[in-house]
Amino acid sequence: MPRVLFKPAEIAVQVSPGTELLEAARQAKVPVDSPCGGKGSCGKCILRITQGDVDSDSLGLLSASAVENGYVLACKTRVGDTDVTVHVPAQVRETDGQFVDDMDDIFLENRELLPAEHSCEPLVEKHCLQVAPPTLDDGLSDMDRLARAIQHSASITDARTSLSFVSKVADAIRADSGKVTATLMRSKSGCEGVNIESGDTTRDHYGIAVDVGTTTIAVQLVNLAERKIMAIRTAYNDQLHCGLDIIGRINYSGKREGLTELRRRVLKTINELIRNACESVQVDPLNILNASVAGNTTMIHLLLGLKPEYIRLEPYTATILDAPLLRADEIGLTIYPDTRVFISPAVGSYVGGDITAGLLCTEIATGSSEVILYLDIGTNGELVVGNDEFLLTCACSAGPAFEGGGIGCGMRAAAGAIESVSIDQMTGISAYRTIGDIDPAGICGSGMISLIAGLFRSGWLDAAGKLTREKSSPAIEFKGRRAQFTIVDGHSSSNGEPLQISELDIENIIRAKAAIYSASSLLLQQVGLDFSDIGKVYIAGGFGRFLNLDDAITIGLLPDLSRDRFQFIGNASLRGAYMTLVSGRCRELVHDLAKRMTYVELNTSPDYMNQYVAAMFIPHTDSDRFPNVGKTANI
Amino acid sequence: MPRVLFKPAEIAVQVSPGTELLEAARQAKVPVDSPCGGKGSCGKCILRITQGDVDSDSLGLLSASAVENGYVLACKTRVGDTDVTVHVPAQVRETDGQFVDDMDDIFLENRELLPAEHSCEPLVEKHCLQVAPPTLDDGLSDMDRLARAIQHSASITDARTSLSFVSKVADAIRADSGKVTATLMRSKSGCEGVNIESGDTTRDHYGIAVDVGTTTIAVQLVNLAERKIMAIRTAYNDQLHCGLDIIGRINYSGKREGLTELRRRVLKTINELIRNACESVQVDPLNILNASVAGNTTMIHLLLGLKPEYIRLEPYTATILDAPLLRADEIGLTIYPDTRVFISPAVGSYVGGDITAGLLCTEIATGSSEVILYLDIGTNGELVVGNDEFLLTCACSAGPAFEGGGIGCGMRAAAGAIESVSIDQMTGISAYRTIGDIDPAGICGSGMISLIAGLFRSGWLDAAGKLTREKSSPAIEFKGRRAQFTIVDGHSSSNGEPLQISELDIENIIRAKAAIYSASSLLLQQVGLDFSDIGKVYIAGGFGRFLNLDDAITIGLLPDLSRDRFQFIGNASLRGAYMTLVSGRCRELVHDLAKRMTYVELNTSPDYMNQYVAAMFIPHTDSDRFPNVGKTANI
Repeated sequence: MPRVLFKPAEIAVQVSPGTELLEAARQAKVPVDSPCGGKGSCGKCILRITQGDVDSDSLGLLSASAVENGYVLACKTRVGDTDVTVHVPAQVRETDGQFVDDMDDIFLENRELLPAEHSCEPLVEKHCLQVAPPTLDDGLSDMDRLARAIQHSASITDARTSLSFVSKVADAIRADSGKVTATLMRSKSGCEGVNIESGDTTRDHYGIAVDVGTTTIAVQLVNLAERKIMAIRTAYNDQLHCGLDIIGRINYSGKREGLTELRRRVLKTINELIRNACESVQVDPLNILNASVAGNTTMIHLLLGLKPEYIRLEPYTATILDAPLLRADEIGLTIYPDTRVFISPAVGSYVGGDITAGLLCTEIATGSSEVILYLDIGTNGELVVGNDEFLLTCACSAGPAFEGGGIGCGMRAAAGAIESVSIDQMTGISAYRTIGDIDPAGICGSGMISLIAGLFRSGWLDAAGKLTREKSSPAIEFKGRRAQFTIVDGHSSSNGEPLQISELDIENIIRAKAAIYSASSLLLQQVGLDFSDIGKVYIAGGFGRFLNLDDAITIGLLPDLSRDRFQFIGNASLRGAYMTLVSGRCRELVHDLAKRMTYVELNTSPDYMNQYVAAMFIPHTDSDRFPNVGKTANI
Repeated sequence: MPRVLFKPAEIAVQVSPGTELLEAARQAKVPVDSPCGGKGSCGKCILRITQGDVDSDSLGLLSASAVENGYVLACKTRVGDTDVTVHVPAQVRETDGQFVDDMDDIFLENRELLPAEHSCEPLVEKHCLQVAPPTLDDGLSDMDRLARAIQHSASITDARTSLSFVSKVADAIRADSGKVTATLMRSKSGCEGVNIESGDTTRDHYGIAVDVGTTTIAVQLVNLAERKIMAIRTAYNDQLHCGLDIIGRINYSGKREGLTELRRRVLKTINELIRNACESVQVDPLNILNASVAGNTTMIHLLLGLKPEYIRLEPYTATILDAPLLRADEIGLTIYPDTRVFISPAVGSYVGGDITAGLLCTEIATGSSEVILYLDIGTNGELVVGNDEFLLTCACSAGPAFEGGGIGCGMRAAAGAIESVSIDQMTGISAYRTIGDIDPAGICGSGMISLIAGLFRSGWLDAAGKLTREKSSPAIEFKGRRAQFTIVDGHSSSNGEPLQISELDIENIIRAKAAIYSASSLLLQQVGLDFSDIGKVYIAGGFGRFLNLDDAITIGLLPDLSRDRFQFIGNASLRGAYMTLVSGRCRELVHDLAKRMTYVELNTSPDYMNQYVAAMFIPHTDSDRFPNVGKTANI
């Protein structure tokens, strides 16, 4: 059988002749980005054959010069009869097949994130108890004596129990002279017996916090006995094979067995992350007794196997916003099966539990009177404006431009993506930096923002988003009425193709930023405020990671406020999930927040379209709104 | 393949040569009693080959004359190469393979058993609701709107839900313009969503009451919408193969996989009865949303798969007395899986939920000041004495004599069992009647009581239980110091063997009756009462079915009270299960009763042995206790 050697990881696998290269990479556990699911449409699984021959249909999907240079799409290429060596471009900041999230790194260093005044109080607790021995006189059953011990030690009178709990009791209370550890869940309606073990097992008490994102899923393993984060794992949501965004997923769920497949895929991703996290610190997943999940409304529906189609159809109705405490085995999480899972409540179909959980990381959770603006920018932008007196929220469709979608050479913020660009004012020629400092493969959202801000500041782009026709640059060429800008020529790019953006690409970014800005503006208008009333702007999500604040303000995505009012808070959804995992107060708070938030439907707000159109300029038609942004400010 | 024709049922099956006759009977669905499980030890599977040849090892287990007459044990006989006709003696009052229980027949006629003041209020109820359509404005999820409808129509605010419930909601509320039927369980700690269907399905609402006895299991199918009993089915507990009594079962549970097997067997019996009952009246078992189970403590442990061994070992501790509301699928009942099952609470390891449920059929449940004595007589006798002020209970081991065990020609109260005997005072020769009026195969407990009473009254038996040596009878023969009495000679019995009882057999019955009488006496003594203070004696269970009251009083089993104070109440456990099935008040009552009952441990009561020894005479050493019983009363 031919041997496939993947470089630079130096991992080799033997596969049958005819095996798809993407499959060979899977077998070798070499991560290759493939969001379109092997249809050859996304072009993200590009690899370079450096030795040996393969059978590839990549021509037509890649340029002739790229194919000549050995580039292929892994999903359109089969291994032949001979050994082959494949060079894999660095994927999304991976190390050992795992994401490394900068914010999570910081998080991991500051292990103590929870407000100090909140005690560690997971939903499911372990209590070490002493159960009295049976006697002839008292007529008490094993369960009766256990109930007394629970009442005495844990002050719980009425515990519900499942049969699997009851069936362990007799042996457990006899194995270690009556010393047992009862795992109990407190809830509004009393208490529920989750598990019982002999002896003192209170040290073996773990929890997981899960952020189920449309694109990526992150899992944190927490030692609840020591209140320490043990491991963080992040991976692409395996549902990416079924559609890149929420609407794609909802459409896919309507196919035969589509919903079942989507559920299976998201569970596969989560459970693999749990397993990886557990293996890395040698924790038995059956000792995970608490789980807290945050995700947008559609992701939670798919995780629970609930039809999401009514979310997409007017009047955009979710089946569930505030999920009950469901059993882990009902959901399909491979942790202790009889335990219960907390899911952060959603506000509406398009403002989910990822936002309510994320707000726990802001002053809103601690009841500040300062007005904040909370932005989670992705394909869908979710916004919250408010303080301890009011909370407004809305969702707007920014389109996929910020995630590299709909842009000719766009890509996600992965290795090889251009993340910042500066423009020479005289020549219009760009200098750039890529994620991972490798040959550029495309441009990500923050790179586009940097590029547009740079072109605008240097006078090569006008406020309407048109490349200037008043002076000429080797980087700008005109094709009829449309112009395009070359960021990287074919000699320098990773696949031998020049990286260019068109005015249409620029317009896509302007549309996206206008959607976010005008939604923020409208929310403030609803309560008679403007941007100057905002004390703090929180930017959540991976998007903020590489974003340059000046650039974002320059193009009019973010309001022109003092830079110290902005705070990037990374994966706030995961942090919020952690807080609800360890703190009863935070679980209450997140429910309070969900109840307090008023959802504003932008589509039915008459002024939204006006605001949107006004924001379709760089930075804005009303330049007074951006006093510190001048077209020639840094010339 | 040879054909086996079973008579009188006229059912034929074709089987491979070498098939065991017991297996052939099973395939033909011809019920053949086989409590020892085919070990050849109980001799109950006796059949008669009337045509054709078989390969039988019955000789040695049956007498030579019986074998010559074509009698075989089905478990020791294999079908040969040729067709064979088999005569099956009538089994326990069976028709179409089903028990016909006299008391249940009566029950079926008086369909209305519940006190009229109790409303029909099953644990799980169906509510037909109108759910408001989704709108753009209200921001309510499907679950939110359903919760409002539930609150409005059923006045339930906080319903817990399982994922399987939630996953049905979206489609259910859209299928019939918002009209749905919600199946909900009320409980102390709120309410639980069980099922949701579109439209009005409140007519399809059934329940089952189950009595899990050590020997027999009975199931009642109840139409809860119309409050009518639809069908009753009774069968032997399939656990009989694993031991005849409670101690046998507990011992069996200690074997490898023994507990699993016992649980599987009892579930098999119950689920087959449910299926049969449902098929007979064309009810879908998935429309059974309520179930109420009564059984002794050990049977409930085995049904739930809980180790019963601690019940047998001092200090005789049950794992559970008052079971929580467990899910049907956890237990393994093949009804609607997500519903909850009510189990009548036990008082102790040897006074179970069958007794507390049975008490619902007495004045104790309605709060009368009249003192009652409640007797459930079987291998274990359970007794209750009390009124609305006090309730004492105890259990005593009567041994298997009343069920035909430990008696040379004893058998259960099945077809062919001698159920009553009269003795000719002059000759000592007996006349008898059998159940089913067929050739006698043995003698059951009530037959033994009748025989002993007859022998005593006619002067052939003395108060110490010895056959008289003062006069001679062809029915009595002496072997050394032991005498034996022939009830039926070999010409008249079903298997050609004479039916005889020895003085040892008589002593076994006297021990059994002494255990019951002295336990009753001791319970009364504990509260300073005697038998004359008793207003009513209830006799529950199958044992009472064929019992002659005068005979039972004559031998001193029952106290010598006016005959109108006695009431046979048949399968009170099943009737109690029915009452807890349909009435919330009865479910409360049965818990109150269990709490109110004080368990008296006979083994630690110093006076019990004295009482017992005093009762080892016919009728009693203290003949003043039985003023109406004279040795020669009816000479």
